[in-house]
Order: sequence, then C-alpha cells, then structure tokens
Amino acid sequence: MSAPIRIDVGTGPGAYPVLVGRGLLAELGTHLRSVGLGGKVAVVADERVLDLWGDRALATLPGASTFRIPAGEAAKTLAWAERLWGELIWAGFGRGDCVVALGGGATGDLAGFVAATYHRGLPLVQVPTTLLSQVDSSVGGKTAIDHPLGKNLVGAFHAPRLVVADLETWTTLPTRERWSGLAEVVKAALIQDVALLDTMERELETIATDPHWAGAEELVARAVRIKAAVVEGDERDQGKRRILNFGHTLGHALEMLTGFGPLTHGEAVVLGMRGAVEVSRHLGRLTDEEAARARALLERFPIPSFEMPRPDELLEAMRRDKKVEGGRSVFVTVGPLGQAGVEDVDEGALRLAIEAIGG
Amino acid sequence: MSAPIRIDVGTGPGAYPVLVGRGLLAELGTHLRSVGLGGKVAVVADERVLDLWGDRALATLPGASTFRIPAGEAAKTLAWAERLWGELIWAGFGRGDCVVALGGGATGDLAGFVAATYHRGLPLVQVPTTLLSQVDSSVGGKTAIDHPLGKNLVGAFHAPRLVVADLETWTTLPTRERWSGLAEVVKAALIQDVALLDTMERELETIATDPHWAGAEELVARAVRIKAAVVEGDERDQGKRRILNFGHTLGHALEMLTGFGPLTHGEAVVLGMRGAVEVSRHLGRLTDEEAARARALLERFPIPSFEMPRPDELLEAMRRDKKVEGGRSVFVTVGPLGQAGVEDVDEGALRLAIEAIGG
Repeated sequence: MSAPIRIDVGTGPGAYPVLVGRGLLAELGTHLRSVGLGGKVAVVADERVLDLWGDRALATLPGASTFRIPAGEAAKTLAWAERLWGELIWAGFGRGDCVVALGGGATGDLAGFVAATYHRGLPLVQVPTTLLSQVDSSVGGKTAIDHPLGKNLVGAFHAPRLVVADLETWTTLPTRERWSGLAEVVKAALIQDVALLDTMERELETIATDPHWAGAEELVARAVRIKAAVVEGDERDQGKRRILNFGHTLGHALEMLTGFGPLTHGEAVVLGMRGAVEVSRHLGRLTDEEAARARALLERFPIPSFEMPRPDELLEAMRRDKKVEGGRSVFVTVGPLGQAGVEDVDEGALRLAIEAIGG
Repeated sequence: MSAPIRIDVGTGPGAYPVLVGRGLLAELGTHLRSVGLGGKVAVVADERVLDLWGDRALATLPGASTFRIPAGEAAKTLAWAERLWGELIWAGFGRGDCVVALGGGATGDLAGFVAATYHRGLPLVQVPTTLLSQVDSSVGGKTAIDHPLGKNLVGAFHAPRLVVADLETWTTLPTRERWSGLAEVVKAALIQDVALLDTMERELETIATDPHWAGAEELVARAVRIKAAVVEGDERDQGKRRILNFGHTLGHALEMLTGFGPLTHGEAVVLGMRGAVEVSRHLGRLTDEEAARARALLERFPIPSFEMPRPDELLEAMRRDKKVEGGRSVFVTVGPLGQAGVEDVDEGALRLAIEAIGG
C-alpha cells in the first residue's frame, strides 16, 4: 500500500484533508487520530456495507459503536435522525467524540445531518464507499434528510473533519454504480478541467468496468480537487458553487418525475448534461464542434429505458428548481469546455434542453 | 422614539447588528429591509405574544405568514420543527426568504433551529420579547430543540441576520420574568464588567419592578456588548465562550432535578452563581470581601421555596454536565470580580457549591 494522495479542502480552522488511496480502511483508526479524533466513535452504515467493509474498518477502531441504518434514501428520514440522536445520547457522546459515515451518499447525508445537529455539532468523518460519494457528496459539507414533502429539504452545512476514500471499495460496487459516479466526474471535467476530458474520452469504459484500473487514485483526486476549488470560498452555496449544478436542473426534474426509481442519479445527470450542452450551444457558449465533442462523450453512458415524463411536466419542475424574476430561470451552461457560468434563461432554452433528450 | 442603540456582533460576512430601543416593533419591516431582507417572511410566535405584540409587528410586514406555536419549552419538539418545515415548504419559502422569531428564548430556539436546517439555512431575525432573551439567548447563534432524552440536545449554530430588542415589551413581562433576565445581566457583570456591577447594586429592584426605567436601553446594550465580546472568535463554543456558563453547572442541575417547574432559569442561575462564588473564594480567586459583595447582590434576588434535591443527586448531575479526565470537572470561576476563568475542580469544590445553597 502506497501513501494516500492528500487534498486539503479550504483554509483556516475549517479546512480538512481528503485522503484517496487503496486499502485506507485498514488504517482508518490511524487516520482519525492523525486529525486529533481520540474520543468515542460511532460508525453509521447500512447492512450491506457493514457486511462488505465493516470488519476491516472496525478492526482499526476498538470500542467503536455501530449504528445500522437502512440502505439508500430510506434512511434519510426524521425518524432515523431521531433514533441516531437517541443512540448517541445513550452512548454518552459529547463534543469530543465523532461520527463516521461509512457508505454512499445517503449514509453521508443522514449521518452528517445527525452529527451537524447533535449537541450543535460533533466531528464528522466521511468514509465514502461509492465512486459517486468519493468524487462528489463526501466533499463540501452538505448534509440533509428528506421531509415528507420533498427530498433534502432539511439539512445543514457541516464540513467533515476528514474524508477517507478507499478505492478498494470499487471492487464491490456494481458497474451501474460506477457509471453513476463517472457522470459526476465528467461534469467536473466539463465545468472546470478540460484536460480531464481527454482522460475520460480515452478511458471511460475501462474505468467503468475495471475496479483495479491503475489511474483510479489520480482520477478521484482530480475530481476532488475540482470540487474543492469550487466549494472553497462558497461554503454556504451562495454563488460560485452553483456551477456544480450543471446538468442537475433537468436531471433533478427527471429523477423526481420518474419517482427516483428507474434512473440512477448519474444517469439522470447525464441526460441533464446532454440538455445543458444543447442550451450552451444555442446561447453561443459552445461552438458546434465543442458541443459535438461533449455530446459524443455523454452518449457513451448507458441509459436504461424509462418512461419519459411529459415535456410540460419537466418544464414546470425545472422552473420550480430555481426561479428568478420575470419567468426566467437560473441555468448552468458551459463554454468553452472546462468553464461554466450561471445565467438567466427563458422558457425556450429550457424547452430546448428537454427536446435534446427526446422529451 | 429616539434612534436605537446598535451593537455589531462579529466581523466579516457573518456579522450582524443588534438594535436596542423603545418602539422598534413598530418599524420592524424597515429594519428587515435595512439588512437586505426583502423576500417572504414567516413570523413564528406563541398565542400570548401574538395577542400582545403581533398586530404591531405584523402591521409593518405586509404579506407575512404567521406560524403559531405553543408557549415555552413545549414548542421545542421535533414534531413542531417538522410542522414548521412543512409550513415553509407549502408557503414556497426559499433561501431568499426569512424567519422571524418573535418571543422568548424557547421561540428563538425552535424558530432558529428550523431556519438553520430548512434548505440548509434561511436568514433568521431574532425579535426577543423577554429581558432574558434580549440580554442572552437572542445573541450568539445557538439554536436547539429538545430530544425526549434531554433538553437542547439537537441544535445548530445559526447566527441571526438581525436582532431587534424592543424594550416596550418589558411592559407586558411579569416581574418574575424580569428578575429572571436580570440574573443573566448580573452574570455578565461578574464575568466581564465590574463597572456594570455598580449599576446593578444601585438599581436592581428598580429595574425589576419598573418597566419604564430610563436606563433600560443602556443596560441591555451593555449586556449585549459583553455577550458579543465573549462569543466573537468562539462562534462554535470551543473555548472562551464557556465562561458564559458561570453559575450554570449547578443551575442546570437544579433545573433538571426539580423538573423545570418550580424555578425559572434565572432563579436557578442565581443559586448556581451563589455556589460558584463560594468555589471561587475557596480557590483563592476572590477575596473574602469580593465574595461578600457578590453574595450580597445575589441574595437580593427573590427565590421561591422549592424542594432542594439531595446533594448526591446534584453532584452527579453537575459531574455529567462537563467531565474531564480523572474524575475532575470543568467549572467556571470568577476572580477578581469582572473576570472569569475555566478550571478543573475536584469533587470537594462541587460539594462546596452545593452546601453554599443549603443543599
């Protein structure tokens, strides 16, 4: 095992390291101590992740408590938050102790929200075990649970004290989940790093199908660096950070209107990016050649068949996402490739995005 | 109506003004606009406060929604938080809109927690209507709800965008509530401002009984300045801010063991401060003369009769409050008057505090 790649997110007292490498779970306790976490530890994880990776992680954390939660979005309820708060109280957790989120984005969201709000904030360690959470949700400090009336409506910004991304976990990740994570890597390339686009064009299918691909650490580190550069200085999501929503306005609308079932997050975002590329071309941000290049890459992502929502429903959902004055919407475009901007667009632009994906 | 006194808390992007004056509720809308709040407004208040002050405040906020909550601690539940999140969702609130907490500390705690966690943070305006919340809880950014297993265990730090303390509200405050608030003013004097102690010694009964007392604005402003000076640079309650707990280790133990019934928060803190003064004298922080002076002031506070918990129960509760290694406890002492320190004390010191109040 070679030394992990370390990316520091932020500066000053809120800064934290992201460690990327192979086999890091087997030395998790050491990494916790290296950032000054020496108290009690609560590991929050679902059954499947515990089966696959629990022993390895817990062997390095003697005395840690394990809190089992349901897999996926089902865990992101107020009832589960209340239960975890209660478990922390019973176990006598105080401000010097910490919560470890071991799993994908949903686990990080719930465990992060509980850590953010227990005693007004316990230290949080994100240990993402999916490619999607390694390159995206574990970095940046967003935590959330769902409300019966909508997803992610209740949450807090709570920066982790440490992120540990062990690429060994790719070996137990379904291929479709790896594709889902790669969608966010392509997004990162399109909005911020055109050179990364070359890598993706060359290696896309290899990365998706070979969990032992040699470039994995550098790829994840690069995506994390991009996200870190965007969230720095906008921890509270007021400005620059909005470019991370590239492809997400239409993507969220698709996920919501199809009931969060037939499409993974990444698949919805790929479709959303296809639409956003057309809008970017239409507005003159991308040349025809650049748009064709982005489109060609996005079309290499497998998308399952699903029932496309009606265009008017998609339009309405997109407009609700972010409204501005006078019936215009906030929309993230790219152009040239590797640079993103946030602009107000009219209904015609939103319809163009919908048409581009056959809606 | 003269111009309000303005105290700026903090520096940089998170700074906010506290306005102290008479009649400020009648111009609340203007003050909101002056800090850039121009969107939707949700006023959270209990029935009694709405009866007394709702018309005046709402007249300046055309179109504001009113969310009624139970009075006091009964509102600080997860169920009420969930209901308020739902109301905000139905009313279409987004990040540009704001929550106004109109009432005492419990209202500020609940409304503040809901604002902190809805869409990961809406702007919050604290409009404290009790002396206690004006001089203490509305400043500093602490928000919380209760968990079935304990008070204030779930919460967040969420600095308000504006605090508006209208001293007209003293006119409808029961005398006992004014005494309760004065306990925190005396605490502020003892830990940080010995000159304020002179004022309190001279005017204590007048302030408690005359809601039109001419020095009210300067008194509240002074207490706010003290709190602001303490919380600045320790927004997350890691260090200096702990001196605000002077008298609160024993005070919290008394409140908890008497079931939050017979004693107001201020009364419990007065008793706690009596104990803490004895500990400070015992440790040589205060001279006998200083201790006698502090004791004399604290003995002017009326304390109702109540059943004193057993000393061993008090000791156990105090030790749970803040533990350090080796059976010692963290305790806030003063000495000389107007200066506070945080130190580790042994069981003997805690027993001394308990004996000092007849426990």
